[in-house]
Amino acid sequence: MVSVHECGRVIALDPRRLLICLALNNSVKIEQMSDTNKNSQDQSLLEAVTWNEQGLVPVITQEVGSKDVLMMAWMNRDALLATLRLGEAVYWTRSRQKLWHKGEESGHTQKVKEIRLDCDGDTILLMVEQKDGIACHTGEHSCFFLQWDSNQSTWIDESKSK
Amino acid sequence: MVSVHECGRVIALDPRRLLICLALNNSVKIEQMSDTNKNSQDQSLLEAVTWNEQGLVPVITQEVGSKDVLMMAWMNRDALLATLRLGEAVYWTRSRQKLWHKGEESGHTQKVKEIRLDCDGDTILLMVEQKDGIACHTGEHSCFFLQWDSNQSTWIDESKSK
Repeated sequence: MVSVHECGRVIALDPRRLLICLALNNSVKIEQMSDTNKNSQDQSLLEAVTWNEQGLVPVITQEVGSKDVLMMAWMNRDALLATLRLGEAVYWTRSRQKLWHKGEESGHTQKVKEIRLDCDGDTILLMVEQKDGIACHTGEHSCFFLQWDSNQSTWIDESKSK
Repeated sequence: MVSVHECGRVIALDPRRLLICLALNNSVKIEQMSDTNKNSQDQSLLEAVTWNEQGLVPVITQEVGSKDVLMMAWMNRDALLATLRLGEAVYWTRSRQKLWHKGEESGHTQKVKEIRLDCDGDTILLMVEQKDGIACHTGEHSCFFLQWDSNQSTWIDESKSK
């Protein structure tokens, strides 16, 4: 298994695209996420991805162990770099148009174990350890709790039928 | 487990949006996929989905049993209806702008066991049995055979390192 770089505990993702985190030795690391400051590692990471016309790529998040698909979200280049730096999932929220460190409010962070890319580079698969086992903002383990029932011709909400 | 409707063997997906399939009793069934011909079941199925501005929804395809994520593709309304009718995955190919019955050329069809939808309706998760265990057009089991290696700062192609 190939692990990603981890920086310790996240303090903040600054709106000016400063990535601020507390390293394992308790020193504070601040990194500028701007395009002008990318190193060759960043280039290798980013260039393999086929970004869409909005500069985004869809990301499937799957739990290691259970292999449950937890959610689907989007990343831009900064989100992918931040994910690599932090070792925790950072997405781009299209509705709020900002970086979104998953769990920053709920505490339900996702520790990244693998970053995978598909054959044509236009989808990322993140393998994560899901803190508290809750990925969905509804409080569910996975966001995919609606299942189509052909017999009843309706979507069954498994979150309510537990 | 909730099974989807199956029509038997697919003969063709006609460009005029006629879905033609050979039923289990060897009768040929032809269905028009146009919007004017949707029944209430179709409405229930389609209305829960949040279609994007192109009328598409991303679809994650996961193998039952192994729970491997095989691929990500897109569906429009017709593709989702066709998938339900056939019991096999039918996507919308954005590059070729047409319905794409997965495996129509390669034979690597996907028998649909579950159709799932996420909390905000904007992503579908298909649980499938993958014919021959090959989902990727490259001949790989899964399309996600590239893995990021932070130590070497490169994407490792697992399809070549087998």
